Amino acid sequence: MNVNHLQTPAFLVDANIVRQNCASMREKARASGVAFRPHVKTHKTIEIARMQHGDATGPITVSTLAEAEFFADGGFRDITYAVPIAPDKLDRVAALAKRVERLSILIDNAEALRGLERHGGVFDVFLKVDCGYHRAGVNPDDPDSVRLAISIANSRAVHFQGLLTHAGHSYHARTVEEIRRIAAEESAALTRFRDLLPEELQNTLRSIGSTPTASVVEEFSDCDEVRPGNYVFFDAFQATIGSCRRADVAVSVLATVVGSYADRNESIIDAGALAFSKDLGPDHIDPQFGYGVVCDVDLRPLDARLVALSQEHGKLSAALPIGMRVRVIPNHSCLTAAMYDTYHVVENGAVVDEWKPVHGW
Amino acid sequence: MNVNHLQTPAFLVDANIVRQNCASMREKARASGVAFRPHVKTHKTIEIARMQHGDATGPITVSTLAEAEFFADGGFRDITYAVPIAPDKLDRVAALAKRVERLSILIDNAEALRGLERHGGVFDVFLKVDCGYHRAGVNPDDPDSVRLAISIANSRAVHFQGLLTHAGHSYHARTVEEIRRIAAEESAALTRFRDLLPEELQNTLRSIGSTPTASVVEEFSDCDEVRPGNYVFFDAFQATIGSCRRADVAVSVLATVVGSYADRNESIIDAGALAFSKDLGPDHIDPQFGYGVVCDVDLRPLDARLVALSQEHGKLSAALPIGMRVRVIPNHSCLTAAMYDTYHVVENGAVVDEWKPVHGW
Repeated sequence: MNVNHLQTPAFLVDANIVRQNCASMREKARASGVAFRPHVKTHKTIEIARMQHGDATGPITVSTLAEAEFFADGGFRDITYAVPIAPDKLDRVAALAKRVERLSILIDNAEALRGLERHGGVFDVFLKVDCGYHRAGVNPDDPDSVRLAISIANSRAVHFQGLLTHAGHSYHARTVEEIRRIAAEESAALTRFRDLLPEELQNTLRSIGSTPTASVVEEFSDCDEVRPGNYVFFDAFQATIGSCRRADVAVSVLATVVGSYADRNESIIDAGALAFSKDLGPDHIDPQFGYGVVCDVDLRPLDARLVALSQEHGKLSAALPIGMRVRVIPNHSCLTAAMYDTYHVVENGAVVDEWKPVHGW
Repeated sequence: MNVNHLQTPAFLVDANIVRQNCASMREKARASGVAFRPHVKTHKTIEIARMQHGDATGPITVSTLAEAEFFADGGFRDITYAVPIAPDKLDRVAALAKRVERLSILIDNAEALRGLERHGGVFDVFLKVDCGYHRAGVNPDDPDSVRLAISIANSRAVHFQGLLTHAGHSYHARTVEEIRRIAAEESAALTRFRDLLPEELQNTLRSIGSTPTASVVEEFSDCDEVRPGNYVFFDAFQATIGSCRRADVAVSVLATVVGSYADRNESIIDAGALAFSKDLGPDHIDPQFGYGVVCDVDLRPLDARLVALSQEHGKLSAALPIGMRVRVIPNHSCLTAAMYDTYHVVENGAVVDEWKPVHGW
């Protein structure tokens, strides 16, 4: 089937670009001699998780227990759930852990450790470290963090898996140079913290990963494992801050012009907040960026911005003809992909397959 | 089951508040002597659509053809699809129209009318009029709009249903007085435009509707049909601009504190952009509003703002205890509800049911 025959809005995934993105990141990890545990939260499909490992299963990172269960059912046996664990999810973690080789969880405080000990099970646990993003994680320069690492490593409720960080502040960067500086901080924070640990913990695994930092470095150094995820699709945000070229973006939203207003030089497409998400994209670089990059069906950029979204309407800053199909490169492919039950897989302009992501929690 | 036993994040719907919201709006329409065709896009469930009509089916408004088909299967026989029609959706419209009493579509330009005529079927059609929102719709003060209305009314491809407008600009209001002024404009635009039409079109139906305008007027006047939708749930946005009281908001997101950082007075909950949407809410009134109103499990507001969202993390501006449950009143209930496959229905603190919305297009 041709792309033009799809009902709109539709989420298109270019399988060749995904394969290429998957191959380069995997090869970079291999050449760097680090373990590769890609995140699957961007796509949430078995098909692409297998592409991340070269048409095979392998270690993965997930953002929800629903993903963990879905990928376990799909044959993935070594899973890190990379959000600090909620105490009342431990039963579900323990149940799933029995079905796989390893299900690692994250903690970053003594109260969560006491929760594990009260539960009675034994958990595979990473200590989350803050490398400057200031979302979750312990301060690597605080002596209390060292004491917590030692308590975790010594806890009878824990198989200590290592130190884990995420340089989410790389998304605030404006240039490749800035991202490179943050990439260096990401690795350095774990290494510096590990140096403070007792001798028996000097081989503790250091796991890093964000798509901007993983994309701009020539090779991974000063770490043991990498966990990028967005790189499978990339998006308008990543292309703007310099993580990738526009041609590396594998996804777009196909939409149809349903209203056109020459007097105000605007048009309306049948894709709104539920087709894109309301992510503002790289508005720290361009406050007028809009909700995606508007292109024709052959992905040539048009002189039109996606200036407003309501639930099922998107407003363009150009009066395009009624019925015209456009493709919009989304600002944030993780959030946009999550709005769709079906991805339409495109190869050389033809729709060749449908992939179904897992949703929910 | 008690709310505290739900896995988080979870979307909670207070059935008693929904019933009350449904009853008041329905009663206002009845007392005003206007037809009532509520929008169902906010909740997308059969259960609440029936509540909107007092435990019965009745005329409804939808935002996608997937909704139209779902509600047709649920017994709803008179449906208006209130997004300008895409030419390539006409086959699907014609097929569904055969299964119900009436499926009305919207157009606002001559090219769309020619599309209907080329298709060969006969369609129930509203002319979309712009009452000041400047999203879709013809300019009611442009003589071309009168000519288009006459062409539509005379087309052999059309059963002309009337004039339809939506005062979406009421969402930009800051006070109830401003919303009242926009409500007057909403009705006046259709009446003024109808006055320009030939005598045989002087009884053309005038359909209006937005939740802010429908909520603040004492009664509906100068119109024939009303189509509010968000009022079933309301949200933090509506409460802030004055469409409702905080106590009228029927929905919240239940989340768990999974990280707490006393040094920077912040915490992290296990609910992020996919649990809330990234709608900024009433940021035109308070740029620091955040992504929802953070409350305890009994819906008492906490001194904490939801200042940042990533995919599965929400950051609060207060160091709450690990494991604490919070309820967050969402900024925009339509977009938040659409993120969930299941709504947990709560009555007096107990979870009494699950409702399943339709998704997609």
